[in-house]
Amino acid sequence: MTPTALARIALGWLAEPGTWTVYWLVRRHGPLAALERLLAGEVADPALRASVAARLAAGDPRAAAEAAAEHTVRLGARLVTPEDPDWPPRLADLERLWGRPAQRRVDRELAPPLCLWLRGGWPLHDVLDRSVAVVGSRAATPYGSHVAAEIGCGLAERGWTVVSGGAFGIDADAHRGALGAGGPTVAVLACGVDRPYPVGNTALFDRIAEGGLLVSEWPPGAAPLRPRFLTRNRVIAAATVGSVLVEAAARSGATQTLGRALALGRTAMVVPGPVTSAMSVGAHELLRKYPESRLVAGVPHILEEVGRIGEDLAPVPRGPDDPRDRLDDEAALLLEAVPLRGALDVEQLAARAGVDLRTVLRKVPLLEDLGLLVRTDAGYALAPRRPRRADLT
Amino acid sequence: MTPTALARIALGWLAEPGTWTVYWLVRRHGPLAALERLLAGEVADPALRASVAARLAAGDPRAAAEAAAEHTVRLGARLVTPEDPDWPPRLADLERLWGRPAQRRVDRELAPPLCLWLRGGWPLHDVLDRSVAVVGSRAATPYGSHVAAEIGCGLAERGWTVVSGGAFGIDADAHRGALGAGGPTVAVLACGVDRPYPVGNTALFDRIAEGGLLVSEWPPGAAPLRPRFLTRNRVIAAATVGSVLVEAAARSGATQTLGRALALGRTAMVVPGPVTSAMSVGAHELLRKYPESRLVAGVPHILEEVGRIGEDLAPVPRGPDDPRDRLDDEAALLLEAVPLRGALDVEQLAARAGVDLRTVLRKVPLLEDLGLLVRTDAGYALAPRRPRRADLT
Repeated sequence: MTPTALARIALGWLAEPGTWTVYWLVRRHGPLAALERLLAGEVADPALRASVAARLAAGDPRAAAEAAAEHTVRLGARLVTPEDPDWPPRLADLERLWGRPAQRRVDRELAPPLCLWLRGGWPLHDVLDRSVAVVGSRAATPYGSHVAAEIGCGLAERGWTVVSGGAFGIDADAHRGALGAGGPTVAVLACGVDRPYPVGNTALFDRIAEGGLLVSEWPPGAAPLRPRFLTRNRVIAAATVGSVLVEAAARSGATQTLGRALALGRTAMVVPGPVTSAMSVGAHELLRKYPESRLVAGVPHILEEVGRIGEDLAPVPRGPDDPRDRLDDEAALLLEAVPLRGALDVEQLAARAGVDLRTVLRKVPLLEDLGLLVRTDAGYALAPRRPRRADLT
Repeated sequence: MTPTALARIALGWLAEPGTWTVYWLVRRHGPLAALERLLAGEVADPALRASVAARLAAGDPRAAAEAAAEHTVRLGARLVTPEDPDWPPRLADLERLWGRPAQRRVDRELAPPLCLWLRGGWPLHDVLDRSVAVVGSRAATPYGSHVAAEIGCGLAERGWTVVSGGAFGIDADAHRGALGAGGPTVAVLACGVDRPYPVGNTALFDRIAEGGLLVSEWPPGAAPLRPRFLTRNRVIAAATVGSVLVEAAARSGATQTLGRALALGRTAMVVPGPVTSAMSVGAHELLRKYPESRLVAGVPHILEEVGRIGEDLAPVPRGPDDPRDRLDDEAALLLEAVPLRGALDVEQLAARAGVDLRTVLRKVPLLEDLGLLVRTDAGYALAPRRPRRADLT
């Protein structure tokens, strides 16, 4: 591990990730000089000086960093820092939140992470490039679980990465959906990547490490302390193109993630539910509170929202002969509703695309003519063609 | 019946209600002179001249009007015209839609009604003054039926009139809810007020005629022709302060009523539902399409929306000693959630008000101190006081 990387680990050991003074010191002087200044007590903030002094009384930051680096290698984990080409550039957007009051429990928004630990083989930047956060309640209802799994599956089928936490309920359902469709999926943890929390999700974490990535800004062995979940949430909001809330009780942590996504200029998407369900109160609250938030009823709506933004950020070059360019909105929506594998009948198509049956019956012949859809015994399926997936990931 | 009223009936017999040329003739020259001109063929529009000529070949408009007037009296029904103080002033807002393309099936928006037939004893203007339209699908799910009945009941409990059509499903559920709470409720029909359609709702229509009003712009005996339902919808949108959509399939007639409510400057409110339900597709579509539309999860949200507007339109004078004036938004919302009759425990209160339990526990002591709430064995109930209902209706 480079001295720079070791200095970043040491800084995280001296002050909890998210500390602005440390972040700006690193931005101005680099990690090595920033560590020197912190160790020399050369910081204006007396509270930070005091907490650093307390940490120094308990141990040596450089030795702790060396130990964490060894531990990382021993686990087969890796460290990624802003000096690496694999660092996700979107995380720097968190700088915009500097000085902003946070929504609750934490007084102020927190600084971007100093470094990230990873478990899993995928390249971080590539995996996050086209990614959507799926967040929601731990106490999901069967309805919420079903919708989260469908969204996870549908996003993965279309080459989008799911990003979530590691909790029971919506987080786990979204990951399972994505893994079922071949992933990748990313769990951002509030503890070390070697420390499954909750323990009941251990098998899921192992599957995610194989078919995606476990990510944390705390070193291996770090405990899932309560405030770390809120700190962690900002990474989920910042690393993705947009966030989808599936189910949330009134004023839950997940609604806070959506609020932060909006503050970062991301798309905040909300799946509604029955008004008779306490688990949808937070979702409806959000849609009422933020006029910029978007109601989404499924993957076609989500792709409509993030697809637009994804293209703004990184235009995908396309040959002029792509028949998809000739589709109107309804036909495009319909085509997005067809899974990469398997077939659907017209009613299933209508339901998945969220359009009525007449529209399906009117548009399907056009899609057949353009060679995009084929009729099979089991219903309509995507026509075999050059794999589109490769363009997307 | 006055000659003016008879002229209006004759005009409606000569040309289907909603015809702009007839409406503007009446506005400029009065009903009697407008009828003379139409009978003399003095109209520029050749299509209207031709259809009037065809009607004249089939009968005498003045005799038809006399017959309709007698029929009306015989039934115990009444006619209301813009010359009466009981005419609802909001209907004139439909003039604003002149020349606007309509949303579907009809090419253009239609003119305000020329006159209205009523069955039931309530004064029309008073009943509509504080009214909310509740519209939705005929093929309602049990979820939609439950929500529509709850909304009908909750609005009636708080002195608001429900306005809807006469169809099965959401229309009927909203009326039943309102009647159960003591009404009044108003059904606007696409046929004569003596002609129950659908026949299966006959008993409901009789109850509405007793506890509210049946309203139609077609004379007794008129048949429920298909285009009349869309013509009728504009009265529902225009006569009310706002419209609530409970359940609708993709692009249904009910979503069109909401679009027209928005065009008229009314509040368009939408109850979301499970995204897995085809009967909520239209509701979600609407929330996505119109950023001005408002998601509502129940009566407290509806009152929040229309209450504001209702106060803008007609400020309710209040003594300075009303303790309600001292409530913050959350306490007011909570108080609105308490039914006029019966009691609720804190969890039911939280669910109905759409706030979390902690808020209820924090605000309830304040409401008790102000003498607005009392604790009973069955839970919290409104404190006995001067009836508030009288101020509202």
